[in-house]
Amino acid sequence: MNSNKLASEDKSKESKHIYGRAVEVLTGGVSRNTIFRKPHPFYVKSASGSYIKDIEGTERLDFANNMASLIHGHSHPAIIEAVTEQLYKGSAYTMGTEAEVLFAELLNARTPGFEKIRFMNSGTEAVMTMIKASRVFTGKHKIAKAEGAYHGTYDYAEISQTANPSNWGDIDKPNAVPVVQETPKGIIDDMVIIHFNDIERTINLLDQHADQIACVLIDPVPHRIGLFLATNEYIEAIYNWTRKNNALLVFDEVVSYRVNYAGAQDSYSVKPDLTALGKIIGGGFPIGALAGKSEIMNVLDPRATFLRHPHSGTFSANPVSTTAGRVAMELFDEAAVLKLNAFTMKARKQIEEVIKTVDVPVCITGAGSMFRLHFQKNTPNTYRGAYQDKDTKAIVDELLDYLFFKKDIIMINTLACMFSTTLTQNNIDRLSEALFDGFKLVKPKIDQLV
Amino acid sequence: MNSNKLASEDKSKESKHIYGRAVEVLTGGVSRNTIFRKPHPFYVKSASGSYIKDIEGTERLDFANNMASLIHGHSHPAIIEAVTEQLYKGSAYTMGTEAEVLFAELLNARTPGFEKIRFMNSGTEAVMTMIKASRVFTGKHKIAKAEGAYHGTYDYAEISQTANPSNWGDIDKPNAVPVVQETPKGIIDDMVIIHFNDIERTINLLDQHADQIACVLIDPVPHRIGLFLATNEYIEAIYNWTRKNNALLVFDEVVSYRVNYAGAQDSYSVKPDLTALGKIIGGGFPIGALAGKSEIMNVLDPRATFLRHPHSGTFSANPVSTTAGRVAMELFDEAAVLKLNAFTMKARKQIEEVIKTVDVPVCITGAGSMFRLHFQKNTPNTYRGAYQDKDTKAIVDELLDYLFFKKDIIMINTLACMFSTTLTQNNIDRLSEALFDGFKLVKPKIDQLV
Repeated sequence: MNSNKLASEDKSKESKHIYGRAVEVLTGGVSRNTIFRKPHPFYVKSASGSYIKDIEGTERLDFANNMASLIHGHSHPAIIEAVTEQLYKGSAYTMGTEAEVLFAELLNARTPGFEKIRFMNSGTEAVMTMIKASRVFTGKHKIAKAEGAYHGTYDYAEISQTANPSNWGDIDKPNAVPVVQETPKGIIDDMVIIHFNDIERTINLLDQHADQIACVLIDPVPHRIGLFLATNEYIEAIYNWTRKNNALLVFDEVVSYRVNYAGAQDSYSVKPDLTALGKIIGGGFPIGALAGKSEIMNVLDPRATFLRHPHSGTFSANPVSTTAGRVAMELFDEAAVLKLNAFTMKARKQIEEVIKTVDVPVCITGAGSMFRLHFQKNTPNTYRGAYQDKDTKAIVDELLDYLFFKKDIIMINTLACMFSTTLTQNNIDRLSEALFDGFKLVKPKIDQLV
Repeated sequence: MNSNKLASEDKSKESKHIYGRAVEVLTGGVSRNTIFRKPHPFYVKSASGSYIKDIEGTERLDFANNMASLIHGHSHPAIIEAVTEQLYKGSAYTMGTEAEVLFAELLNARTPGFEKIRFMNSGTEAVMTMIKASRVFTGKHKIAKAEGAYHGTYDYAEISQTANPSNWGDIDKPNAVPVVQETPKGIIDDMVIIHFNDIERTINLLDQHADQIACVLIDPVPHRIGLFLATNEYIEAIYNWTRKNNALLVFDEVVSYRVNYAGAQDSYSVKPDLTALGKIIGGGFPIGALAGKSEIMNVLDPRATFLRHPHSGTFSANPVSTTAGRVAMELFDEAAVLKLNAFTMKARKQIEEVIKTVDVPVCITGAGSMFRLHFQKNTPNTYRGAYQDKDTKAIVDELLDYLFFKKDIIMINTLACMFSTTLTQNNIDRLSEALFDGFKLVKPKIDQLV
């Protein structure tokens, strides 16, 4: 056994041991498939700002930020301070808190379309409640969503998220493909699968179910589709269709809310009726929220003589999540959003230079403080166009592993970076240099793909 | 205006003002209908142990413990200490933590039936995942649940939770009654409504869908049904039925896990295949979990060549919730459970004495550290038997308001108490005395009901 191998084993010995215990008690050794990696996940000792130190002491530069949920990186002092103060006052009660009101005021002031808001515990809960509220308000049951878009784990919302060439069907008649086995047929039949950024096909598909559609569910910057912004024309076309057909336009901004001060929706000439939120608005703590027009949100109003949509949640609007979220969003003010977006754009340009220098067929998509690398020459703008086959995915994984193990850099498993305000130019230089080496490593394989 | 009224207005002035702001930004001014009360909710300044101080400075004795989720009351020092330590290490990452493994080890060691566990963000998510996993494992789609039982807000799980005499139908052919308007017919059709603790009718109803049922979902101490324990005969009968019919017996122990050291399931000669958890296992922070037999939990295993049930969650198994939960459950050890249960039984006896003395037709149901008062002479043991009509509910509300406003005591809106380990004999004496006065107040009205 050579010393390199020994050193490498030392660098993972404790994590390997913890994972050995984990598989005995947790299914597959994890609670989130996201953290699973071969040969085993790595375990965190501590994290601060842009860095995560694992249990063996290796410090990595983090561009994943817990799947885009930490806009200020790890352990932000202002959030720690506010949460600590709250801890001594309690973390949850069967009574109200001013924390939830302050946070609701902040978010509603931020985004013009948020007339009323309700907090819950996750993006999954927010999207589920948004779909249920859409049914109540419109009296209709079908839900339209884009092929490949991720919207959490509510059965309806997850249909066709993982559609692939073997099951997605003709582009003009896309199949509703369940993610979880044995999804009931009633759920599959209630879904209308549309194509992101493809106006003609989308309108045509919506028209086929015109009188049955409760809402069209759109993530305006869908990470899993490819992390590119919906065009204004696309959103306008859907908006106009929903006005004509008594349907709602609802946005999943769980990931994309960071894109502008008022959310990705601020990029469009028309606005959604409802918006689901999560991730960054929790300041690092579990949260979800549903916001939108009063007349629709009112279906949840407990003061109604006949309450059309009863809804509860033991930890909803708990003062820890709402306080942490408020502090995080106060710090992520208009100037901070613009600064982070400009910084991210500069980083993208720097990486584009690297791509040119190494001369690899890689392109970058993204919006605001997020971007994603694709192993293809032409920038994709559809799910099917951005879809990675098995061979491509193998090279992506090789690059991710190289960055993680050799360069101590963490990216999301789609080769995406979700920036935080704690990143510096030095961090970007390190990312660029690592990608330079990484691209060189995988270049022969990528070249063979094309 | 007399001085009493002035004093009373002072006691709610700030809360009234905050609620005035709340209704401008939150639907109905709340994120949880639970905290809504007329004329407005009260807002918390701080909470410690068994006491919550509202923003006006009134300190109330808390028997609700955030809907049974705080087994050690508010702001427990050991939980604050552990969470504070964690805050400086970060609150969520796209990597593993030893915290989730330690907590999984603790819970699985506690309950023999927990071979594998997976954490999520709420009881709602846990029940939803339990239902989806049951479908995957059995290849069947129907879900049996008890009329009146609350299992969170997943559409399937909430059917018939609020069934009432106008819509529940013949007892031998109970209707599947949606909670939220416009629940799709496919969901309603997939539900088989059974009667809690009624073996003959339940088996008869199950038999009618014998080859289609994926799981029978049981809360062994269903709070909304009436907060009484399922009999061993009932659980055995269902268990035997599921063995014969290739179905799963799944428990919702989000509330009831506190009943024994190993959960309410420890009361039975047979065990569930899967269990959903939440509430107390979060130590005051958002959590949910699904636990059970390895062969079933394996449908969630990301290492599988073909993953049958993909599942994720941004904040699932975050180290704050898992650390707080571990500390809370370590403190709630076998001795603590027995002590709290015995203490609760003593309190029940004391209240029974009060009932006798005042001579009101009130009875008490409960299990472990939970109990509920019913305005009827004979102890109910079914949902329909415990159902409160409008007149009864009005008296319940009057008593709750009396306790809250005149005696500074918080109970759950069903007249239930969920004890925490911080309660003392003095607290119980105060509750007994308050109930003595409260019962006297409402006695004439209760007597008229009977």
